[in-house]
Amino acid sequence: MPARGDHDARRADVSAAVWRVLAARGFGGLTLRAVAAEMDATTGLLTHYFPNKQTLVRHALKVAEEHSETRARWAAEEPGLAALRAALLDVLPLTPEAVAMSRVWVSFWDAALGDADLGASQTGRYERWRGRLRGHVEAAQDRGELPADVDPEELATTAAAFAHGLVVQVLFDQDRFPSARQVRLLDDFLTGLRTGRSA
Amino acid sequence: MPARGDHDARRADVSAAVWRVLAARGFGGLTLRAVAAEMDATTGLLTHYFPNKQTLVRHALKVAEEHSETRARWAAEEPGLAALRAALLDVLPLTPEAVAMSRVWVSFWDAALGDADLGASQTGRYERWRGRLRGHVEAAQDRGELPADVDPEELATTAAAFAHGLVVQVLFDQDRFPSARQVRLLDDFLTGLRTGRSA
Repeated sequence: MPARGDHDARRADVSAAVWRVLAARGFGGLTLRAVAAEMDATTGLLTHYFPNKQTLVRHALKVAEEHSETRARWAAEEPGLAALRAALLDVLPLTPEAVAMSRVWVSFWDAALGDADLGASQTGRYERWRGRLRGHVEAAQDRGELPADVDPEELATTAAAFAHGLVVQVLFDQDRFPSARQVRLLDDFLTGLRTGRSA
Repeated sequence: MPARGDHDARRADVSAAVWRVLAARGFGGLTLRAVAAEMDATTGLLTHYFPNKQTLVRHALKVAEEHSETRARWAAEEPGLAALRAALLDVLPLTPEAVAMSRVWVSFWDAALGDADLGASQTGRYERWRGRLRGHVEAAQDRGELPADVDPEELATTAAAFAHGLVVQVLFDQDRFPSARQVRLLDDFLTGLRTGRSA
C-alpha cells in the first residue's frame, strides 16, 4: 500500500512538472529532457512513464484539460447573455493563471494541427464549445437579449472567433491589453451583437 | 559565376523545402531532418546552411514572410470599409494556399511565444497590422461607413481578433467552414460593426 501511495505521489509530481513546462514553453517546448530537468530527475526515469514523445504529449493534453476544468470560472447570475459573457470571460487571459492556460492552449493548436488524432479531438472540443455558446445565444434570444432573427450557430461562431483571436492579441502584447481593456473589448463586442445585428 | 548561380539555386531549393515542411507540419514539425528528407539531402548538407535549430527557425520565418507578402491579395475598389473587408479576407483560409499559410502562422504563435526575440517581433508585426486595420476604420468613419463615435483602435482590434479566431475555427473544421461560409461570417460581422456599435 505505501508503494502504491509512492507511485501516485510520483505520478502527481510528474504531472505537476509537465504543467510547469507547458506553462513556460508550451507544447512546442515539451520534451522528456525538459520535464526531467523540472523534476531534478533523469530522462531515464521519465521514459518509465513516457516511452515516447507521443505518450508525453497525450499525458500533457490530459494535464492541460484537468487544469482547464478545475480553474476558477466566471459565474453568471442569469442565463442568456450573462452566461454567454461569463463563458467568453472564461477564455480570456485576465489573470496570470489564465495567461498560462491560454499560452498552453495556443501552443496546442500547432501540436493538434500536426497530428490527425489530436486534430480530430480538437475539432470535437471546439464543436462542443460552440454548442455551449450557441445554447447561451438561444437562451439570450428567448429572453429578448439578442435579436431573434440571427442564426444562433453563426453568432456563437463569431463570439468564439472573437474570444480566441483576442487571446492571441493579448498574449503577444500583455502590456497593451490589461484585463480591464480585455473586458471592455468583450462588452463592446456584446453590445454590438445586442443592438446591431440585422440578419 | 556559375558557382554563384549554383549556390543561389541551392538556397532556393532549401527555402522551397523549408516551406513544404512548414505547410505540412508547421513550425512545431520543422527540423533539419525533415527539411533534409524533403530535399533528398543529408542533414550534414543542411547544417552547412543552418548550424542550429535557431538559424533554421529564423530562416523559416523569412520564408513564411515572403510567402505572405507575395500571395494573391484581395483587392478593394474603394478605401474605408471595402479596404477593411479586403484586409480581413486576406487573413482567412479561403483557398488551399491560404489554408497552408494560416496553418504556418498559427504554428508560429507557439514558436514566438517561446522565444523572446521572435515574440517581440511578432508583437511589432501585430501592432503594425492593427495600425493598418485602424487606418481603414478611420477612412470608413470619414466616409460615414462606420459610426464616428467608436474608438478606431478598439474596432480595429476587435476586427483583428475576429479574423484570427475564425482562422483557428476553420483550420480545425474545414468541412464545416467552406469559403462561402467564412465570407458570410465576415460580412455579417462587418454589418454588425456598421449598424450596431453604440460606443
